[in-house]
Amino acid sequence: MTFLSALSQGPPRVVTAGAGLLDEALAAQAVPTTPVAWRPPLPGTADALARVLADPRRQAANELAVRRLTTARPRLVGVRRASEALAGPLDGAFLHAGPPITWERASGPMRGALVGAMMLEGRAGDEHEAARRLAAGEVALRPCHEHGAVGPMAGVVSPSMWLFEVRDEEHGGTAYCSLNEGLGKVLRYGAYGPEVLERLRWMDEVLGPVLAAALAAAGPLDLRALAAQALQMGDELHNRNRAATSLLLRALAPAVAEAAPDRAAQVLRFIDGNDHFFLNAGMAAAKAATDAARDVPGSSLVVAMARNGTDFGVQVSGLGGRWFTGPAGVPDGLYLGSYGPADANPDIGDSTITETAGLGGFAMAASPAIVRFVGGEVADAVRATLSMYEITLAEHPAYQIPGLGFRGTPVGVDVTLVARTGLLPVVNTGIAGRVPGTGQVGAGLVKPPVEAFTAALLALADEVSDPFENGHISTSARQ
Amino acid sequence: MTFLSALSQGPPRVVTAGAGLLDEALAAQAVPTTPVAWRPPLPGTADALARVLADPRRQAANELAVRRLTTARPRLVGVRRASEALAGPLDGAFLHAGPPITWERASGPMRGALVGAMMLEGRAGDEHEAARRLAAGEVALRPCHEHGAVGPMAGVVSPSMWLFEVRDEEHGGTAYCSLNEGLGKVLRYGAYGPEVLERLRWMDEVLGPVLAAALAAAGPLDLRALAAQALQMGDELHNRNRAATSLLLRALAPAVAEAAPDRAAQVLRFIDGNDHFFLNAGMAAAKAATDAARDVPGSSLVVAMARNGTDFGVQVSGLGGRWFTGPAGVPDGLYLGSYGPADANPDIGDSTITETAGLGGFAMAASPAIVRFVGGEVADAVRATLSMYEITLAEHPAYQIPGLGFRGTPVGVDVTLVARTGLLPVVNTGIAGRVPGTGQVGAGLVKPPVEAFTAALLALADEVSDPFENGHISTSARQ
Repeated sequence: MTFLSALSQGPPRVVTAGAGLLDEALAAQAVPTTPVAWRPPLPGTADALARVLADPRRQAANELAVRRLTTARPRLVGVRRASEALAGPLDGAFLHAGPPITWERASGPMRGALVGAMMLEGRAGDEHEAARRLAAGEVALRPCHEHGAVGPMAGVVSPSMWLFEVRDEEHGGTAYCSLNEGLGKVLRYGAYGPEVLERLRWMDEVLGPVLAAALAAAGPLDLRALAAQALQMGDELHNRNRAATSLLLRALAPAVAEAAPDRAAQVLRFIDGNDHFFLNAGMAAAKAATDAARDVPGSSLVVAMARNGTDFGVQVSGLGGRWFTGPAGVPDGLYLGSYGPADANPDIGDSTITETAGLGGFAMAASPAIVRFVGGEVADAVRATLSMYEITLAEHPAYQIPGLGFRGTPVGVDVTLVARTGLLPVVNTGIAGRVPGTGQVGAGLVKPPVEAFTAALLALADEVSDPFENGHISTSARQ
Repeated sequence: MTFLSALSQGPPRVVTAGAGLLDEALAAQAVPTTPVAWRPPLPGTADALARVLADPRRQAANELAVRRLTTARPRLVGVRRASEALAGPLDGAFLHAGPPITWERASGPMRGALVGAMMLEGRAGDEHEAARRLAAGEVALRPCHEHGAVGPMAGVVSPSMWLFEVRDEEHGGTAYCSLNEGLGKVLRYGAYGPEVLERLRWMDEVLGPVLAAALAAAGPLDLRALAAQALQMGDELHNRNRAATSLLLRALAPAVAEAAPDRAAQVLRFIDGNDHFFLNAGMAAAKAATDAARDVPGSSLVVAMARNGTDFGVQVSGLGGRWFTGPAGVPDGLYLGSYGPADANPDIGDSTITETAGLGGFAMAASPAIVRFVGGEVADAVRATLSMYEITLAEHPAYQIPGLGFRGTPVGVDVTLVARTGLLPVVNTGIAGRVPGTGQVGAGLVKPPVEAFTAALLALADEVSDPFENGHISTSARQ
C-alpha cells in the first residue's frame, strides 16, 4: 500500500514524538494524534550511548546487578562503636559523606562537622585549633562509602561514634551507618557547640551501649520487612521516617526496658523525640543492598549516589570504586523559620543511598504527606515516582506503593536510561546551613548534576571492548 | 422558546437521571447524555422524609450537632478499673455491646463473653454454672452506650476490667472503653478458656495499673491529633490500627519504663504484639465525640451505631437514648484458616462508633492496605469513602485523607440522606465465630439493616410538630 493510498483509506492516523509543536499544530486543526514522549539524549552522549547499548554484556550484567540489589535481605544485626567496628580500616582517619574531599574544598557544614569531631575525640581543645589541625592535614579524610559505611548530611564518623551494623543475609555483605542525633543543632548539619558534643557523649555512653544490648537480646531485625511496612504507612524513607521510626522503637522497646531498666526511659524518649531516627538504619540497609550489586562487569547500574557538600558523585556497578562527579546543587524546598535559599549549603550527605535503592524521592508516591515537608502537591509526588520508572531497571518486589495499586517502587538507576531520557534521579533531602555551626535550615528536592551521569556513561563506553580498535575507542569519546 | 424550537437550535442536550436504561439506549444511538446519579428513597419513607425535611429546626440542629461532633477534642486522661470508674452505675451489672439484649436472644459470642466474665469475677465456678446463673437473670445486662462506654465485639465489661478514660476537652464529656486483649482466643470474640481468663487477670494485675501510672506521669494524650496522624499513615482506625498503635506505644513507652522498670518489658511486649491495641482508645475517643452531638432537638444526625450480635441499633441526636434496630447481618470478608461464612456470627460490637465518628469504613480511602485484610481492591476502598460523602453532613476538619488531596473524611450520618439515597453506612468489622468459645474467624465489611434507619426516620417524623394535627401526625406514619 502506498502512502497516498493509505491516506485514501480514511482519516490520517498521526503519531507525534517528542516536543509538542507538531502535536499542538495538528490538534488546532482537529486532527487526532497519538503523542509519544521522546526526549533527545543528553548532549554529547550519542556516540558513547550507542557503544554502551551495543555492549553484548550489558543486558545480562544489568539483570544480575539489579537482581542482587532487589533480593538483598538487610537485617540490623548489631550496634557497635566505630572504634571497634572499623578499628583497622579507620586507623585515625575520619569518614565523611560523598566522594573524596579535602579540607580546602570542603563546604561550611562539612568543616563544622569535622571540627566538632576533632573536639569530641579530644584531638583539639577548641574550634580554632581543630580547624588548624584539619587544614594542616593531621587527620586523613576518607569517604564513608570506601569503608562500607554511609552517613547522613556531613556524614562524619569518628572513633567514639556508634554505628548500626546491617548484614545482607542473601549476599553476605555488611554495611554501617552512624546513629541519628535528632534535629536542630546537630553535628551532621555542621553544628559543633557544647550541646552538640554533650549529646554525642551521651550517645557514646548511654544510647549506643543500651541499643547494642537491646538488639543483642531481641535478635536481628528484618529491615527489608520494616521498610516495606513503612511504605504502606506513608513513609518514603528519606525525608519521612515517622512510621519506620515508630515501628523500630516498637520492636526494640521491650528489649531496651529489659536491657537497661534504669536508662530505658531516657533512651526511649530520645528515639521518640526524633521522627528521623530510623533513617540511619534504613541508609545502612540501602547501602548493604546496593553494595550487593557492585562490580558486575558491563553493568550500567548506579550503585551509589552521594554528596560531600561540594561535589555530587555517582558510582556504577561495572566501574568499580571510581567516582563520577559534578557540582552539588542547592536544594529547592521549604525553609525553617526565617531561613531562605541564601542560607542553604549545596546538597550534602550519603542519604541519597535511599534513592539508589528505590526509596526516598523514588518512593514519593507512597508518601503523600511528604509534600507538606518538601513543598508541592500530592500529584507532584505521584509524578516524581512515575517518572523514575523511565530510568530504572526494575520494580522492587518488596517495596510497594499502595496508592499505585501496590506497584513496586522504581529501583536501579541505569546510566544509559538517564542519558537516553535526560531524566535525572529525583532526590529528597534535608538542607544544611552554609555557615559552619548553623545546623538544618530546611528540606526539599534537589537535582543531581548531569555531568556525573555523562562522565559515568563515557567511562562505560571506554570500558567496552571494540573489535575495530583493539579494545580501545577513539579518544574523542573518552572523558 | 418552545420545546420544538429549542430542539431546532441544534443537537439535543439530554440529562438522564437514576437507573441507566434511558442513558444506555441513547448512548447506543450516539446521543451525548449527562447522566445524573439518582436513587429512589427507601421504600415507605417518602411521607416521613417530606415531613422531616420540612422541619424548620432541622438544618440548624444538624449544623450544631455535627459541629459538636467534629470539634470534639478527645484526650486520653486515664486508665481506670471498671469497679472504680463505673462503680455506682455498674452496681453488679455487666455491660455489653450494642442495643439492649437478653440472655435468651444473645448470640454465641455474646454468651461466651458473658460466661467468661462470670468466671473472671468469681461469680461462677465453671461455664455451666455461669450459663445457668445468666439464664436465671442473676446478672443485669446493660448496653455500654447507656453508661458512657463502648466495647469491641461482645463488648462485655465487668468490674475487674480496666478502661481507657477519654475526656472531650471541648465539650466536657467523658467516655470509656475496655483495654484490648490481643488477637486469637479472647473474651470479646466469645472465648472463655483458661488462657483467656489468665490473660484478663494479668491485665487486671499488671497492664491496667502500669498503664494508669504511665499515663498519669506522661500526662493526657491528644487522641484527635494521634488519629489524624494515623490516617496519614494508612490506618482507617477500625480494622487497621497499626500506625496508631505504634504511635501510642511510642508516646507511652518512656513513661512505662519509668513507672514500672521491672514490668515495663512485659507491658511493652504485650502492646507490641497486637496491632489493634489502639482501637479501644480510638473507640472511646469516637464515643466522646459522638456523645457531644447528642440531644439536639430536631437533629437527624446518627450519634451511635452498635451491634450486640443479634440486633444492629442506631441512635439519633434528636431522639435521645432510643434505639432503632434491625437484624444484624453477617459480614462479607476474608476468613482465617479453614473458617468460612458458615462459622460467622452476625455482626457484633460497639466498634461501629468509629464509622459514626467519620473513621473506619468511612475513611477506607486513607488505608489502601486495608483491602488485603477485608478483601477487595484499592479502588473499592476509595469508592467506599467517596460514597459516604453522600450520606454525611460534613468533612472532618482534622481527619484528612492524603490520597484524596487531604480532603476531610465524610462524617456525621444524616438519617434523611440515608433514606433519600438508599445508601447505607459502610462498616468495617472483625468477624466472630458463631459458636461460643471459638474466637475470631475473619474480618470484612457489613451492611447495616435498612430497617434501623427507616424506623429512626419515622420516629423523627413523629417528633415533628404538625400545625394541622395539633402536634401529632397520622398514626399510619408512626413506627
